[in-house]
Amino acid sequence: MKFTKFLPLAAVALAVPTMALAQEATPGFDEIGPYIMTTLLFCMAGFLVFFMAAGFAMLEGGLVRSKNVTMQMTKNISLYSVAAIMYWLIGFNLMYPGEFNGYVGSFFVPTVLDPVGVAAADAALDYASIGSDFFFQLVFVAATASIVSGALAERIKLWPFLIFVVVLTGVMYPISGSWQWGGGWLSEMGFSDFAGSTVVHSVGGWAALAGAIILGPRLGKYKDGKTVPMPGSNLALATLGTFILWLGWFGFNGGSQLAMGTVGDVSDVSRIFANTNMAAAAGAVTALILTQVLYKKPDLTMVLNGALAGLVAITAEPLAPTLFGALWIGAVGGVIVVFTVPMLDKFKIDDVVGAIPVHLFAGIWGTIAVIFYGEASLITQLTGIIAYGAFTLIASAIVWLILKAVIGLRVSEEDEIAGLDMAEMGMEAYPDFTKG
Amino acid sequence: MKFTKFLPLAAVALAVPTMALAQEATPGFDEIGPYIMTTLLFCMAGFLVFFMAAGFAMLEGGLVRSKNVTMQMTKNISLYSVAAIMYWLIGFNLMYPGEFNGYVGSFFVPTVLDPVGVAAADAALDYASIGSDFFFQLVFVAATASIVSGALAERIKLWPFLIFVVVLTGVMYPISGSWQWGGGWLSEMGFSDFAGSTVVHSVGGWAALAGAIILGPRLGKYKDGKTVPMPGSNLALATLGTFILWLGWFGFNGGSQLAMGTVGDVSDVSRIFANTNMAAAAGAVTALILTQVLYKKPDLTMVLNGALAGLVAITAEPLAPTLFGALWIGAVGGVIVVFTVPMLDKFKIDDVVGAIPVHLFAGIWGTIAVIFYGEASLITQLTGIIAYGAFTLIASAIVWLILKAVIGLRVSEEDEIAGLDMAEMGMEAYPDFTKG
Amino acid sequence: MKFTKFLPLAAVALAVPTMALAQEATPGFDEIGPYIMTTLLFCMAGFLVFFMAAGFAMLEGGLVRSKNVTMQMTKNISLYSVAAIMYWLIGFNLMYPGEFNGYVGSFFVPTVLDPVGVAAADAALDYASIGSDFFFQLVFVAATASIVSGALAERIKLWPFLIFVVVLTGVMYPISGSWQWGGGWLSEMGFSDFAGSTVVHSVGGWAALAGAIILGPRLGKYKDGKTVPMPGSNLALATLGTFILWLGWFGFNGGSQLAMGTVGDVSDVSRIFANTNMAAAAGAVTALILTQVLYKKPDLTMVLNGALAGLVAITAEPLAPTLFGALWIGAVGGVIVVFTVPMLDKFKIDDVVGAIPVHLFAGIWGTIAVIFYGEASLITQLTGIIAYGAFTLIASAIVWLILKAVIGLRVSEEDEIAGLDMAEMGMEAYPDFTKG
Repeated sequence: MKFTKFLPLAAVALAVPTMALAQEATPGFDEIGPYIMTTLLFCMAGFLVFFMAAGFAMLEGGLVRSKNVTMQMTKNISLYSVAAIMYWLIGFNLMYPGEFNGYVGSFFVPTVLDPVGVAAADAALDYASIGSDFFFQLVFVAATASIVSGALAERIKLWPFLIFVVVLTGVMYPISGSWQWGGGWLSEMGFSDFAGSTVVHSVGGWAALAGAIILGPRLGKYKDGKTVPMPGSNLALATLGTFILWLGWFGFNGGSQLAMGTVGDVSDVSRIFANTNMAAAAGAVTALILTQVLYKKPDLTMVLNGALAGLVAITAEPLAPTLFGALWIGAVGGVIVVFTVPMLDKFKIDDVVGAIPVHLFAGIWGTIAVIFYGEASLITQLTGIIAYGAFTLIASAIVWLILKAVIGLRVSEEDEIAGLDMAEMGMEAYPDFTKG
Repeated sequence: MKFTKFLPLAAVALAVPTMALAQEATPGFDEIGPYIMTTLLFCMAGFLVFFMAAGFAMLEGGLVRSKNVTMQMTKNISLYSVAAIMYWLIGFNLMYPGEFNGYVGSFFVPTVLDPVGVAAADAALDYASIGSDFFFQLVFVAATASIVSGALAERIKLWPFLIFVVVLTGVMYPISGSWQWGGGWLSEMGFSDFAGSTVVHSVGGWAALAGAIILGPRLGKYKDGKTVPMPGSNLALATLGTFILWLGWFGFNGGSQLAMGTVGDVSDVSRIFANTNMAAAAGAVTALILTQVLYKKPDLTMVLNGALAGLVAITAEPLAPTLFGALWIGAVGGVIVVFTVPMLDKFKIDDVVGAIPVHLFAGIWGTIAVIFYGEASLITQLTGIIAYGAFTLIASAIVWLILKAVIGLRVSEEDEIAGLDMAEMGMEAYPDFTKG
Repeated sequence: MKFTKFLPLAAVALAVPTMALAQEATPGFDEIGPYIMTTLLFCMAGFLVFFMAAGFAMLEGGLVRSKNVTMQMTKNISLYSVAAIMYWLIGFNLMYPGEFNGYVGSFFVPTVLDPVGVAAADAALDYASIGSDFFFQLVFVAATASIVSGALAERIKLWPFLIFVVVLTGVMYPISGSWQWGGGWLSEMGFSDFAGSTVVHSVGGWAALAGAIILGPRLGKYKDGKTVPMPGSNLALATLGTFILWLGWFGFNGGSQLAMGTVGDVSDVSRIFANTNMAAAAGAVTALILTQVLYKKPDLTMVLNGALAGLVAITAEPLAPTLFGALWIGAVGGVIVVFTVPMLDKFKIDDVVGAIPVHLFAGIWGTIAVIFYGEASLITQLTGIIAYGAFTLIASAIVWLILKAVIGLRVSEEDEIAGLDMAEMGMEAYPDFTKG
């Protein structure tokens, strides 16, 4: 309850003795400090990761053509909102079911928060509040869905896309997520994925891959064996989006320490910050140098995706590596992006923003790289990668194919040429600027 | 004082015994922990709410036509700056006067911060530092002024607008704010408004409404009984602004818990985060579905305003509701926006960005919705709503009318047609892009 | 290691006695609380200052012409990445060498973080984790480099610029930085620069000044004794950049308190927030009024730079002044910008974004203003200003001249006229918008 700042001051004389009494009854900071710090960590990391929704929107909005920007904005704010609702209704308790068979938890157990003003005796003093934990996990699932929206841009209809998001965020992601972070069979086996190179990023990438194949490329993208460039309409916006994602990643990886109330934990959070930053920087510099060497011109979109690939790559193990470890793990991420973006085009898989190279390929790399610093073996890491890949690819393909059969996935050819903004939304993003 | 990181390390041997001694003299974390955490809460929430100034600027800059963007940017950064100065000079101590008659506190008592390095014995240990409290309250008043700038865009002159902001942020908002948050008559009566659906948002909305009526609609907006659409020039920017506002709202509502140093308080902050997020998501999804159903095309600007209306609606009571409560309170906010935006047009009240539906109408709704979860009665809630409405509407109208009589509110017809950027500022926002 | 949220809950019964035992062995919050809070301060302030990289990119991207935006984005994300790597490889331990001669520390001592899960006994309990300290210092050096990129925009080639950044962030900035913050000769002498008006901002400004002189103005900028305006292409983006910088400055100045674990320290952090905000507001309002008075039209770019100049000015001493002190220190910053931007043009020094007035001139002013509130004497402040100026100007000039001789600094005339985006990058930032 918001109230005057002077009341407490006026009440000090009265309050102090009461406090002294209360303190003997209530637990002191040695007991409650870790809970407070970890709950704060989740709130702080949560708002940082929330902001990644804006980062994805700006990145994707900057990389699509101006005739599809309104649609891309609509998809991004809608997918975040849908994810928030689905994760409350089904996802959170499906993903973190407590005791379960290790494969699928319980459906339709909506999230219930701690009561208002929960007493210390009733709180999970060795962890954090349910509200903070729920919020932090929720913003992760939204990131997964954002990956899909970028890859399938400029030709998918709004509603089938959002129905896919309903299934992805309410069912698919929580089920596969429970295998690892819910204490399921993969965590039992020793699979290691600190903040989600596989559990979050590759899942988004696999879902996008299935969609991109089933949806087909944009009209005119592949012509006479050649790839036709379709440059993004606003590279300033794409750069802003990348910076916002980079910012959010401090929460993404740092918050995944899941504790901040001891010397070791808070120090680890800061170590993760430093490593996360280094991997992104290394990915960007690598892509910059590589494109200069390969194409004689540095390529900004590759630099942006290089930074993101570095971030995805370090996400599976942002704590254990040294700064030099983070550097080379991130740098390999940058290399992967530069080589796999044209490779996808060779297979005529049209990924508008490079989401599959960044989130899937660099995610696989990061998950494998754990074996150099973490405790995992190559075989368990590959098992996890394959399990997530097979499940997400198959489940996504089924959903995409059903949607295609029942309501159709693609806009009409005329609408695609005219742009989704006028055809589907009746609203241009930049109505005052003449198109070139 | 910034200094070498190695000095402390070198001084460890010396410092530790001193610390041990000092600790017996100085209070331990059980006593100072809550003060530290709450001061941190205000700093953190404060910078989040500060960033809402950027959110408003981007939202409004995206929703005006390109010929008025430079002016809109100038208004937004200037109003924040003016608010910061006025709230220091008059507002803060007028709003939080301590003991007072319950209606109007003392004028011209500029804010004085805690001394540098304040001792624990001299600090408000059961609350937070004055600096953090002042900063947190200051960013709220700026939000109120931002609401006005959006509604009156594209035709009001810069200086009368800024003079209005001087009065609003220095006098009007602090006086009415003191009735509730300063411990005045409405708080005595039991009126409940946790983070300001009424105290902040509806006040901005009422001031905007008075201004919009007195100022009149933009030229050509209402023609032959029809509303002429004047589409915003940059929907990517408007979407970014909405995401920034959503981000800032975690500080807006979360910080209004006014405490973070106990298990119950930090858990409540996280509960507020989760509920705030849910209400925004529900508002966005509701507006998306409603516009699809009503107009057969989803409307991005409605989705953005739907999210904002959900946020405004939950602001009066973001703590007590369950997640489902937050969902339906936010959803009703989305409904309100979709139906009241065209309604205002019917009355020929030209609100450029939809600020009045979002901040006033959804603010009233949120204040009423408290009765379902909070402790307030409908009658006290209505009393508060009417009191803030009557005072702000009348006081604003007087100020607007005086400004109109003395220096004039509107630019000339030619200037409005040419755009305020060239006419009033001599500077285009996008000089390189041909106008359509 | 990320793991199920239910494990801890299930383990509560078992864990609680263990915790009680552990607490007797491990230090309590009275001992570890300050370390946790200060480490958190650095993480939080660090991500805020990190985001300033985006702020600089948007500010500069908005103030260059549209034909140079892709290049400006590439420079900004690349310089941050290069700075991150160089500061790890050389800079950090060169700047904070511990015991040293006071002038130059040790080269090529890459940063080593605290071990994973560092024990309290092994941590710098009276300071913070190395990771947090490193991260916080690293984002500062990137700010210095960003200042240079703005001033030299629209004509410098990418690679010589980035090579300069390598030297600046790896060698020059750390050496001069060690004189003050590394405990070198200037700190011994009593020079006072709380958060870097001189150490960070003026250093960036001096490096930019040397570069601007050696590089020469843009083609056609100064013609027949007149300055030809070359308006920025996106003032909404420039405004966003300014707001982001303002946001980041709370971390920049607040984090420079270097401690948050006592009542006095956290209160000081909040005092710095309030003062920082006030100085920015005063700078903006001053520039607004001055441009109205001088040119009869308020100038948005001056208002933006006025806010930034206020921020730079308060950076040397954001703690000691009262709010009124912050107001007038910031206001003078705004005055400086309005008068020195045209002055530079008179000398035909072409600073594209006004970086030299903002960061160098207002930085000098702020460093001098310390004498009114801090403990420093005018003579020591001038000594510091001159020392940083002489060193950075000379060292920068040498590097720029070597680069000019060896690989050339400027693009060809045709490329400059065509725009760096197509000529150097082969990629337009806004390909869909016709140029005016």
